Amino acid sequence: MADGIKKVAILGSTGSIGQQALDVIRAFPSRFQVIALAGGKNGRLLEEQIGELHPKMFYSLTKADISYEGKFSSMEEMASDPEVDLVVIATSGKVGLSPTLAALRAGKTVALANKEILVMAGEIIVGEARQHRARILPIDSEHSAIWQCLRGERSKIQRLLLTASGGPFYHCSGTQLAGITAEQALEHPVWKMGRKVTIDSATLMNKGLEAIEAHWLFHIPFESIEIAIHPQCIVHSMVEFIDGSVKAQLGFPDMRLPIQYAICYPERLSNPVLPRLDLSKTQSLEFEFVDYDKFPCLKLALKAGNLGGTYPAVLCAADEVAVELFLSHRINFVDIASVIEQTLERHQGIRKPTLDEIWQADAWAMEYAERLAYSHGDVFGEPNAGIQQSSLELTE
Amino acid sequence: MADGIKKVAILGSTGSIGQQALDVIRAFPSRFQVIALAGGKNGRLLEEQIGELHPKMFYSLTKADISYEGKFSSMEEMASDPEVDLVVIATSGKVGLSPTLAALRAGKTVALANKEILVMAGEIIVGEARQHRARILPIDSEHSAIWQCLRGERSKIQRLLLTASGGPFYHCSGTQLAGITAEQALEHPVWKMGRKVTIDSATLMNKGLEAIEAHWLFHIPFESIEIAIHPQCIVHSMVEFIDGSVKAQLGFPDMRLPIQYAICYPERLSNPVLPRLDLSKTQSLEFEFVDYDKFPCLKLALKAGNLGGTYPAVLCAADEVAVELFLSHRINFVDIASVIEQTLERHQGIRKPTLDEIWQADAWAMEYAERLAYSHGDVFGEPNAGIQQSSLELTE
Repeated sequence: MADGIKKVAILGSTGSIGQQALDVIRAFPSRFQVIALAGGKNGRLLEEQIGELHPKMFYSLTKADISYEGKFSSMEEMASDPEVDLVVIATSGKVGLSPTLAALRAGKTVALANKEILVMAGEIIVGEARQHRARILPIDSEHSAIWQCLRGERSKIQRLLLTASGGPFYHCSGTQLAGITAEQALEHPVWKMGRKVTIDSATLMNKGLEAIEAHWLFHIPFESIEIAIHPQCIVHSMVEFIDGSVKAQLGFPDMRLPIQYAICYPERLSNPVLPRLDLSKTQSLEFEFVDYDKFPCLKLALKAGNLGGTYPAVLCAADEVAVELFLSHRINFVDIASVIEQTLERHQGIRKPTLDEIWQADAWAMEYAERLAYSHGDVFGEPNAGIQQSSLELTE
Repeated sequence: MADGIKKVAILGSTGSIGQQALDVIRAFPSRFQVIALAGGKNGRLLEEQIGELHPKMFYSLTKADISYEGKFSSMEEMASDPEVDLVVIATSGKVGLSPTLAALRAGKTVALANKEILVMAGEIIVGEARQHRARILPIDSEHSAIWQCLRGERSKIQRLLLTASGGPFYHCSGTQLAGITAEQALEHPVWKMGRKVTIDSATLMNKGLEAIEAHWLFHIPFESIEIAIHPQCIVHSMVEFIDGSVKAQLGFPDMRLPIQYAICYPERLSNPVLPRLDLSKTQSLEFEFVDYDKFPCLKLALKAGNLGGTYPAVLCAADEVAVELFLSHRINFVDIASVIEQTLERHQGIRKPTLDEIWQADAWAMEYAERLAYSHGDVFGEPNAGIQQSSLELTE
């Protein structure tokens, strides 16, 4: 950054977060230079982005036929390229894990939007970051809020309060939940996000994954993380300090704000494109404590996070499969938790796993969860049957 | 502070803030030593405090007959004593101005609870602090909130949002306001405070004085200060940054929290005596923009603050007299604004006044306001008559 221009690699540039990161970067042409772009399934959009930004390196997940003079590079190469100052991990799912590790091992600053990476391999990621003095900057609105509240603070955190919109079904009864279709679940009331995150948001699994992320990012024990339903999505999270003082970060719900905060850090920049919060239009901010019994995915996530080891990776994998099964109409909404629960129950956890062991647990869980849906078709016939049939007693 | 113990002078130890400051100090016996106490009208309480804390120096406003071997010192002597690390200005009214200046000129850190000082002489106070590299740490809950939100931040502030409970009469009609008695006005719904502050809180003058304080403490133009009615008194104020991100500080409404934050700064300490905020008990935080027409004192304060010079000192003095006239049943509630407005109108403002000129303006305003109540008795006979008869057009 000798010339004052931050050189950025964006991994997952064609996804929702990647596109919004580019929106932010476009607002500050004198401050950022995109030197690497890695795109997902949307090859045409990637080609457009490459045409506009002329990166030194590019990567296409689908190996789309893009004719461009830049270097076709792996995501690991991009993430560790000597010229790169900041790596934005906006990939979805676990594909971002290996490039994240490459970036951290090269001492890069990583702006992390991808939940699965810290959930699957939090201990390894945090250890590598510490060893190589690399920084992880959160992009998720909740973690960005906590990070902003912690700015300049040196004292111990008493408690984190993660806020959750509650998703579209927070006030549904158990019977209503069973009948929810994929189409209904894809309509998130506030945030515009990818399909997987939207379903995770409706089951509150998303909030569970965020609690695991917060645990690793801020070194907070799970018993100090509380979750509050806050339907207005204005307060993005809160931190209580040991003296009882609470700090909250608020903002118009628009992902570009936390993205900008991370990529501009430690500066804050004025961006006229971003919407402003107008509290006079909001009037009331409500908080309600979460009903864990109605949202078993959240309970499962906190349990897996607490158990640690390979359990969070298994949670992630089983959730990935279960959400896909639901979106393809093969199981119903309440069975998502059941698939995850049964997969976690069957798993033989490993403490302090290696990366290989994490990948093995992931592969096992994907297969097991998938098999569950086929072999135990009867379990998922009746609403709630899957959830109520067993209580989770994980052993390590 | 060579031995790690902060040596504290408390000016105004027998008042509401002073007593609460001592409560906080008692919770951390190994961290603080009270070496000077200055008490107000309650001589018996001062004697008790002296007996308990054995200060090196003491002062009694009423020169109460206290037999104690410590040195009877002026507040200026205490505030500038070489041994003192921190001066807590918990005096009420303008008596704290001169000791505050003495403390700043001696390069001391000043924890400031007294509004009048910055309102009367903000420019001089801030200038002296800068010149002598002395720090002013706010104790008021709103300013403490802003200060906490600014911790670690380096970028420009876009906007401050000062919250106000609205006092007990926020939803009263104009006619109802006219009939309010001193006894009704002294019942503040949330905060337990002194008589003067409670009335200032009911007229919203208090919020106007706080806006002037915020202007000086945080170098914010008045047009960037907004006021929101927030009846729950949980969010103590908010800061909007240039990127649109908003930070808020929340807490159970108990003055000991901001007092502790200031006197322990830069540390935060756990204090089991302080109540904790339980958001599940609060449920809803409401914000409403203020109706300036119904609360002319607030409008007058912002106008005087904007005009600057000697106007804020005149505002303070006229308010002091008007509140006393109301408390002694000589004018009615709505006439408080009228007395202040007429005094401001008659004042010939001075730009960049000296301390002498500020004291002269203060003395003139006290006398003028007092005289108004006697000579124009008829103005105050009818509800609202005083307020509506003229519009404020101040000239400098």
